[in-house]
Amino acid sequence: MTTHKLLLLPGDGIGPEVMAEVEKVIGFLGEAGIAAFETEGDLVGGCAIDAHGVPLTDAALARAEAADAVLLGAVGGPKWANVAYEIRPEAGLLRLRKDLGLFANLRPAICYPALAEASALKRELVEGLDIMIVRELTGGVYFGEPKEITTLADGTKRAVDTQVYTTGEIDRIARVAFDLARKRSGRVASAEKHNVMKSGVLWKEVVTQVHAEYADVALEHVLADNCAMQLVRRPKQYDVLVTDNLFGDVLSDVAAMLTGSLGMLPSASLGAVDAKGSRKALYEPVHGSAPDIAGRDLANPLAMIGSLAMALRYSFGLGEAADLLDGAITDALAGGARTRDIAPEGTRALGTAGMGDAVVAAL
Amino acid sequence: MTTHKLLLLPGDGIGPEVMAEVEKVIGFLGEAGIAAFETEGDLVGGCAIDAHGVPLTDAALARAEAADAVLLGAVGGPKWANVAYEIRPEAGLLRLRKDLGLFANLRPAICYPALAEASALKRELVEGLDIMIVRELTGGVYFGEPKEITTLADGTKRAVDTQVYTTGEIDRIARVAFDLARKRSGRVASAEKHNVMKSGVLWKEVVTQVHAEYADVALEHVLADNCAMQLVRRPKQYDVLVTDNLFGDVLSDVAAMLTGSLGMLPSASLGAVDAKGSRKALYEPVHGSAPDIAGRDLANPLAMIGSLAMALRYSFGLGEAADLLDGAITDALAGGARTRDIAPEGTRALGTAGMGDAVVAAL
Ligand SMILES: CC(C)[C@H](C(=O)O)[C@@H](O)C(=O)O
Ligand SMILES: CC(C)[C@H](C(=O)O)[C@@H](O)C(=O)O
Repeated sequence: MTTHKLLLLPGDGIGPEVMAEVEKVIGFLGEAGIAAFETEGDLVGGCAIDAHGVPLTDAALARAEAADAVLLGAVGGPKWANVAYEIRPEAGLLRLRKDLGLFANLRPAICYPALAEASALKRELVEGLDIMIVRELTGGVYFGEPKEITTLADGTKRAVDTQVYTTGEIDRIARVAFDLARKRSGRVASAEKHNVMKSGVLWKEVVTQVHAEYADVALEHVLADNCAMQLVRRPKQYDVLVTDNLFGDVLSDVAAMLTGSLGMLPSASLGAVDAKGSRKALYEPVHGSAPDIAGRDLANPLAMIGSLAMALRYSFGLGEAADLLDGAITDALAGGARTRDIAPEGTRALGTAGMGDAVVAAL
Repeated sequence: MTTHKLLLLPGDGIGPEVMAEVEKVIGFLGEAGIAAFETEGDLVGGCAIDAHGVPLTDAALARAEAADAVLLGAVGGPKWANVAYEIRPEAGLLRLRKDLGLFANLRPAICYPALAEASALKRELVEGLDIMIVRELTGGVYFGEPKEITTLADGTKRAVDTQVYTTGEIDRIARVAFDLARKRSGRVASAEKHNVMKSGVLWKEVVTQVHAEYADVALEHVLADNCAMQLVRRPKQYDVLVTDNLFGDVLSDVAAMLTGSLGMLPSASLGAVDAKGSRKALYEPVHGSAPDIAGRDLANPLAMIGSLAMALRYSFGLGEAADLLDGAITDALAGGARTRDIAPEGTRALGTAGMGDAVVAAL
């Protein structure tokens, strides 16, 4: 059995707690002979600032480069609200994404049957919802230059951010979306603002060009503002939704919230496939560091455990093991296991560790 | 009685139909001696491209400058999907906003009691919802330079959009939000992405500074992605929500959709108050040109009529007449008047003209 090298970056807030549950699962998979892992740990985000003065050390980045995949918990919190922009906790995550070339962020928005009731939307609108958001992750306004604040002659300030997209960047993310659609329902929606942004014009143009090679996939262009509306109005109209870094940030959060399963959604950030057929990858929950509930055994570890399942699937070619783990999550839920965030009011809930145990038991 | 000079720009799609209903209301208000208007008409958007080759002529712009207020229907449609970026229908609207200096876009998201059931959200989450979104409208990525597509040496392309915000631009929109909050519940939420964008850093800084002059108003900062989530999860937590041009575009559409009243929401775009105490203003529905239902007497004219009510309130100081008109809309709805978009399936609905008549009757 191949041993897979995993770098664990628990990060801040509830990150370490949910990562501890993944370690339980990793231990079980190893003992059961399903998958073997060699794990290392390091710091990212606020905890790295506290220890080293920067949110990601060069050594941690080198470890990430050397690993077969990275699992990340969450970064940030009010404790670091006043550190300089350049060394804020989020900068550690952004550096990982950029330097590892993780341009394709896959964010499934799945409504677990047991949780349809927890959605803000009417049940019939979200029951069976299964969207795959494909967000471009290393371009756009997140990384474009100039990105600066200057002081004007009168003492007031001027801030600039730059959204840049090239044909190549759009082409490769479009292919990820179309390839995924082929394995799913064969439909892609592409969201941009071509009526206002030049990057939207190029986005639409390149996605249309790439589509010519995927005649079997249906493509729809939608304006990002309308897309946000449609996600609320009739989310099940979407299957694969491809969009840029900034719209993807907002639209994927809307989609995640719709499902009623916010604490349960994993994500994968993938790089290009290299000559040896492997690719850099980072897996993390869609939820944040939730400092308000950190350290209280309240966090839901299922998004983090689901992120390990995505790693099995996308990094290690262990689709069956991934199905097994996803199935264990579904079974644990069907068996009534609930953390506080997804338990109906007035009912008893499991803690973080209890939920981890429930998944291991279901395995 | 002062005569108010109104420029009517019906635009494309359902624009002319809904504008016709506003003209009915204008006629009634005049005859009843409630408010006197002198109206002119002109073209904007696709129809202006067809007639003049540009989406807004200099003459139409001059008319808008000279009017006390502009009412606009909607612009755009598939017919003009392939015109050049510089003369697309939307460019006419953007030029109006920019050249008239309409930096403050007020978008109320109100859930009409009679329509709570039409929301995608559970009734208890939206019943009584009343958010005022204050969107910055003449800055940000909509207008920043460079905004261009260049061809690279290898024949591929590179698109750039630039988000620019200055202290002054943020300061004035923050004041609009705080002033409104004083007349409402005294709460402002400000949404940006200071963890990724320098313009977000400056936005947060300036809003915080301005807040020092509004100690009686409660201010909350929220990341735009989280804000989109919170709008779905628990929309009633917000009262006044201030944000930039691009986030405002997306967040206001989400908020509008939540209410179940999309076809019913008006908006006001206001300029600075000049030495004579007046300000340039444009009023338009939040909905678009809806080409699929254009010309079929299916459109809901209430957003357009509500836009006239906003004009009465914000441009002409006719708060009572505005209340009267808003009341007539509420009464017409309470009396069972429904256009197709808000009528329960299987029930009969009024046409556009029928709904306009119902409002006039309720006046
Ligand atoms: C933490 C932050 C930098 C990040 C982003 O904006 O990409 C987060 O919101 C996300 O979606 O992963
Ligand atoms: C038509 C378009 C240019 C416009 C915008 O993006 O501002 C519209 O979506 C709006 O919200 O008024």
